[in-house]
Amino acid sequence: MKGKFIVFEGGERVGKSTCLSMLRAYAAENPSAKPCVFTREPGGGEIAERIREIILDGDYLGKISYHTEALLYAAARCQHIDETILPALNAGKNVVCDRYIHSSFAYQGFARGLGYDYIREINSYAVKNCMPDAVIFFDLPPDAAFSRGGETDRMENEKKEFHRAVYEGFEELKKREKNFFPIVPKGIEETFFEVLVKLKGIGFFD
Amino acid sequence: MKGKFIVFEGGERVGKSTCLSMLRAYAAENPSAKPCVFTREPGGGEIAERIREIILDGDYLGKISYHTEALLYAAARCQHIDETILPALNAGKNVVCDRYIHSSFAYQGFARGLGYDYIREINSYAVKNCMPDAVIFFDLPPDAAFSRGGETDRMENEKKEFHRAVYEGFEELKKREKNFFPIVPKGIEETFFEVLVKLKGIGFFD
Repeated sequence: MKGKFIVFEGGERVGKSTCLSMLRAYAAENPSAKPCVFTREPGGGEIAERIREIILDGDYLGKISYHTEALLYAAARCQHIDETILPALNAGKNVVCDRYIHSSFAYQGFARGLGYDYIREINSYAVKNCMPDAVIFFDLPPDAAFSRGGETDRMENEKKEFHRAVYEGFEELKKREKNFFPIVPKGIEETFFEVLVKLKGIGFFD
Repeated sequence: MKGKFIVFEGGERVGKSTCLSMLRAYAAENPSAKPCVFTREPGGGEIAERIREIILDGDYLGKISYHTEALLYAAARCQHIDETILPALNAGKNVVCDRYIHSSFAYQGFARGLGYDYIREINSYAVKNCMPDAVIFFDLPPDAAFSRGGETDRMENEKKEFHRAVYEGFEELKKREKNFFPIVPKGIEETFFEVLVKLKGIGFFD
């Protein structure tokens, strides 16, 4: 039987990574969890990670054209799916991915203004047989999220208005996307518990 | 006035590069030639050249998925257009480019089997305002071209059947594409003279 494909989505610094680490530890120790591959976008394989290096290079702030950026994300995604995600799912493993096409909709489609349809078109092949069983969306506005501080990459260095537009994009996806589950991050343990309940609900654990 | 945009197209080892070098020397010494930018695909700028390194990496033979490859070419092209080609044309310079979207049609669309329409779709934004005034197509079948020998990259290392399919793809483009001028490579000087005649015909020289 195919494994379950779970995606964690949201803006910068909403607590996705902490929750992913907790899930990784939990899945490793829980005997009822299937073997599970934890991966990320852009990246998740040698070639896609090289594409990631270009996309997130801090020296290129303001230099990569928006359409180039969208095409690079689609290219990295395509390679990631063919090389990592589909082989794992077909081998019966669960896959948990940090970001997926929903980030392309929110960041490039909405915040960069390229449009939802353009993003869907250039990603058409890549994702046509590989949509997640659940998208856990960390539903926190950027003003709350950015109060946390820390080091930054090219995307995080964009202006506050950009991150607000990203958030509006994600809000729009609530209406459009299937299997899209918003959770409002609270304390870490409470948030993680809510994630576990969702995952149990869709059969992530046997 | 906008400069002229010229593309050299064809399979591997058909003599494009030699002819480009001759044209570069000729344009530099000919007072009736406009300032001219010589560039290439994939590449033609810092970011696009980094994408080129991934695409042509010999270690990735058989590892890059066909759709990833097509998306990377489209991404590199988009950046190349925005960063290099359009600014030069708008400044009144001529641009001569080694390969363009026609190679994506022939290599990924036809030889890889992704289809003409898919290639057109993922390139739709990139090329919509930037199609060449002339495509000089070096019309030589691969069996003749490969008798020349030399060092090889990932694309050149593909099987002979692949290069035959590329050639069939280019033959198909003769029927479909505007401003597509096939020339049959003969001796170097004769070929170069034929190129010059075409370029004069479309106003490349004042």
